[in-house]
Amino acid sequence: MKPKETPVTDCPQTSPTGAMIIGNEPVLGSGEEVRSTDPRTGAALDPAYRAASVEQIDQACALAAHAFPEFRAITSERRARFLERIADLLDERQDILVDRAHIETALPRPRLTGEVGRTSGQLRLFAAELRAGTWQGARIDPGRSGSSARPDIRQRRIALGPVAVFGASNFPLAFSTAGGDTASALAAGCPVVVKAHQAHLGTAEVVARAIADAAADTGMPEGTFSQLVGSGTEIGTRLVSDPRIRAVGFTGSRRGGLAIAAAAAARPVPIPVYAEMSSINPVLLLPAALAARGAALGAAFVESLTLGAGQFCTNPGLVLAVEGPGLDAFTAAAADAVTANAGAVMLTGDIANNYDAAGAALAARDGVDELAHGLRPDGAAPGCARLLTVEGSRFLGDPELQAEVFGATSLLVRCADTDELTAAVRVLEGQLTATVHADHADHPLAAALLPLLEERAGRILFDSWPTGVQVGHAMVHGGPFPATTDSRTTSVGTLAIERFLRPVAYQAVPAALLPAEVCDDNPLGVWRRLDGEPSRDALSTS
Amino acid sequence: MKPKETPVTDCPQTSPTGAMIIGNEPVLGSGEEVRSTDPRTGAALDPAYRAASVEQIDQACALAAHAFPEFRAITSERRARFLERIADLLDERQDILVDRAHIETALPRPRLTGEVGRTSGQLRLFAAELRAGTWQGARIDPGRSGSSARPDIRQRRIALGPVAVFGASNFPLAFSTAGGDTASALAAGCPVVVKAHQAHLGTAEVVARAIADAAADTGMPEGTFSQLVGSGTEIGTRLVSDPRIRAVGFTGSRRGGLAIAAAAAARPVPIPVYAEMSSINPVLLLPAALAARGAALGAAFVESLTLGAGQFCTNPGLVLAVEGPGLDAFTAAAADAVTANAGAVMLTGDIANNYDAAGAALAARDGVDELAHGLRPDGAAPGCARLLTVEGSRFLGDPELQAEVFGATSLLVRCADTDELTAAVRVLEGQLTATVHADHADHPLAAALLPLLEERAGRILFDSWPTGVQVGHAMVHGGPFPATTDSRTTSVGTLAIERFLRPVAYQAVPAALLPAEVCDDNPLGVWRRLDGEPSRDALSTS
Repeated sequence: MKPKETPVTDCPQTSPTGAMIIGNEPVLGSGEEVRSTDPRTGAALDPAYRAASVEQIDQACALAAHAFPEFRAITSERRARFLERIADLLDERQDILVDRAHIETALPRPRLTGEVGRTSGQLRLFAAELRAGTWQGARIDPGRSGSSARPDIRQRRIALGPVAVFGASNFPLAFSTAGGDTASALAAGCPVVVKAHQAHLGTAEVVARAIADAAADTGMPEGTFSQLVGSGTEIGTRLVSDPRIRAVGFTGSRRGGLAIAAAAAARPVPIPVYAEMSSINPVLLLPAALAARGAALGAAFVESLTLGAGQFCTNPGLVLAVEGPGLDAFTAAAADAVTANAGAVMLTGDIANNYDAAGAALAARDGVDELAHGLRPDGAAPGCARLLTVEGSRFLGDPELQAEVFGATSLLVRCADTDELTAAVRVLEGQLTATVHADHADHPLAAALLPLLEERAGRILFDSWPTGVQVGHAMVHGGPFPATTDSRTTSVGTLAIERFLRPVAYQAVPAALLPAEVCDDNPLGVWRRLDGEPSRDALSTS
Repeated sequence: MKPKETPVTDCPQTSPTGAMIIGNEPVLGSGEEVRSTDPRTGAALDPAYRAASVEQIDQACALAAHAFPEFRAITSERRARFLERIADLLDERQDILVDRAHIETALPRPRLTGEVGRTSGQLRLFAAELRAGTWQGARIDPGRSGSSARPDIRQRRIALGPVAVFGASNFPLAFSTAGGDTASALAAGCPVVVKAHQAHLGTAEVVARAIADAAADTGMPEGTFSQLVGSGTEIGTRLVSDPRIRAVGFTGSRRGGLAIAAAAAARPVPIPVYAEMSSINPVLLLPAALAARGAALGAAFVESLTLGAGQFCTNPGLVLAVEGPGLDAFTAAAADAVTANAGAVMLTGDIANNYDAAGAALAARDGVDELAHGLRPDGAAPGCARLLTVEGSRFLGDPELQAEVFGATSLLVRCADTDELTAAVRVLEGQLTATVHADHADHPLAAALLPLLEERAGRILFDSWPTGVQVGHAMVHGGPFPATTDSRTTSVGTLAIERFLRPVAYQAVPAALLPAEVCDDNPLGVWRRLDGEPSRDALSTS
């Protein structure tokens, strides 16, 4: 049964119109008006959107719950084709996506073009993961009769239920409407209700229409995907509190993530909340590396710091190093590069205001000095690079020096010796990443620091920079609180699908009623644990 | 380096003395006196225990946090030997364990002997899982240079940190001090702080001493294991609130589990709570099976219902069936068996009182009739089997009919037809298990019910009974709320280790600094995903 695939060229609806998507249909909200803004000028953008009414939120959740049993039962192959169809439509609509996202976010076109490819590539990776089937976690403990009798037990994972997704401002595509949370939830068999990010409503609508078109083209049930518009926290609280929602994916600020987590904690029935929030991504410059190439490290560091106006979850907001000529060379090169930095328009006026305020608060702490600042661009959302510094002894005593400044500001901590550097690592909060620059002579120190970093970060990098998150099987984009609310997982990479699954065991279930992935003959050819041992073999019926 | 292994026969400390264990040492509490009780007589038992002071709770948590870095870095092989040493000591001390547990719980000696074997067998299974290494979840995405350049990224799982464990009253060994939560947490590399169950303090002490002896014998760091005594909820709240505790395992009542979850939700830093709480384990009798063997099913059902005085998490507290001669035969046989049941002493006087009260509340609901009750034994904690019944239409409208009655009481729901049976399944809360008795002619109906049961239960059984939880790789002892607070996992079987782990990614980390499980040559011989594909091969360095 080949699903109908409408050619995209026949579809006129690729420009934003002001619509939400509820149950695959474009729908106008009936609440207050909401618009995105051009961050260069502060001008409100057309079209106007309206917030979803309480009834519309309810309808999206009801349709998602209704779609769930059918959607989760659809074969991996058909769900993979759905994800691939979304990917194809995003690629085909790349130009309009880039145009619109550029207006709404001021991010450069090449970056946005790359982000479309990253988003469609991520959907295709989950399609491949669906076909490979390892995600099902199939296990078979065959029954035995006789003196060591035991029942036949088989296990697989199934989808949790409808998932609410809150996209990020800083990745209007890869961490938003069709981003990693949506891709992994749909792959798992969970219907998704997205709350569109207010900063890029038009981009969100174009993406949502691509998902809805793909759902229609590949025969997915009504309610598999909806996208709602809202202002403030009301819609978020309502979505997270809805009894039909069974998990939440969020990327954003610590304040926003904690509000979502608090709303979830107030539910009578607890659900998992995957909030990726706040990280300052420490960079450790070890002595031999610093002595060998302090100046080069300084220049490369500022390149990572100022990329995308510093608006990355993995932006290097903290540098830890030991005083000495190497650090002096690093500092001079970094200060020069920051001073020469032209600055950039930030994503929104609010983000720029928060950036200035958080940077000022950090700069005002006792012992903090400014080493350099860059140029301040014109416009409604200016972002000006900034490098601050403090002595290690101050850092050890002042937890406020770990406050995230979302943007291109970093704090260089000058440690008296490697003991103080180690002590500074020990007081670090949880992080998405920790980076180490080390030469061979630094390896004994690096080996001693590594366990401390493992306990504090989701990803450890050597001799590179944390901005840039490879989408693959081994990536971890996660980490201990406050980097996330749940360190047991990742929001990027194929492991992310496990967030939306739960195991079910089948004991002595007749062969004819078993799910395919745990049938004796392994018709799907998936990897399974047979009596504990990984195998793609059929189960020999003895 | 062979660890010192003190022969057990040299160790006099195998009888309960009134001690807690803090950092491998026996310590007396300094709070109020706490004693277990003989449930046959209600007599308080020697020795007296005293509740841990605030300082002692703090000390146990501090030692656990201090032990954590060393304990998690110990090789899988050495941690496996630690678990096996605990298992050996429990087996060697089986007689004293059975004697003491029999006095404290009134459970029959053969059952308790079996439970010692189950507990030691579970520890040995986790030792084998440690050696197999699949639990590490190793993944390698090899780096590439050139036009498709990407960094080398590797992933493994590491331990979360110290775990607080609250054991169950109904399994003084297998779900208690050295039960599944402790075994899986220690296997993961997490130090454990147990709150001993007040109903079996002596058993808990003997087990805790075996763990402490094994820790000393195999050179585990001080603080790897502690056991505290307390009364009421204070110690539990304090343990769950301690910032050094990173996860909680709990088995017990819905009220207790929700109190633990609420204490965890009030923490500034969220942690996972694995509370296994409340389940009535519906049994569906489909028409053809009922017609073929109604009377035999009735007798077998009562055997499962009354096993261990009905004090199993998986006790069949609800039967759903369609009216007809088959159900009449089932009902008559079940009522006869219940009437003939001699009753049994329950675990504690409180449990017996709660059992009577919950049963009375259920029997008092509109439309509920008693079909039969068994004999009421003498003593301080009598448990008398009871079979109630109600019409399907009543069941659909009254959620209170799903209240758990912990003990040998079950409610038979008589449905008018299979549609009403299906409707009854649709209103079910989350469950640990769901059981179906079906003949071949019932398979179409069973196939339609199966997806509904998957969404509501962690384990689905056919033509058997839910009491009895096989410890293996494929078992799921878990399920949607209120069966547990986290349906994404299991508290029995090797998958349980994943509850206490989190993934870490290593990007471009020098080979000499990589953990062994993700090194190119795979020195541990573990299963890994190489570019997504499961393999035990070395990574070919091209």
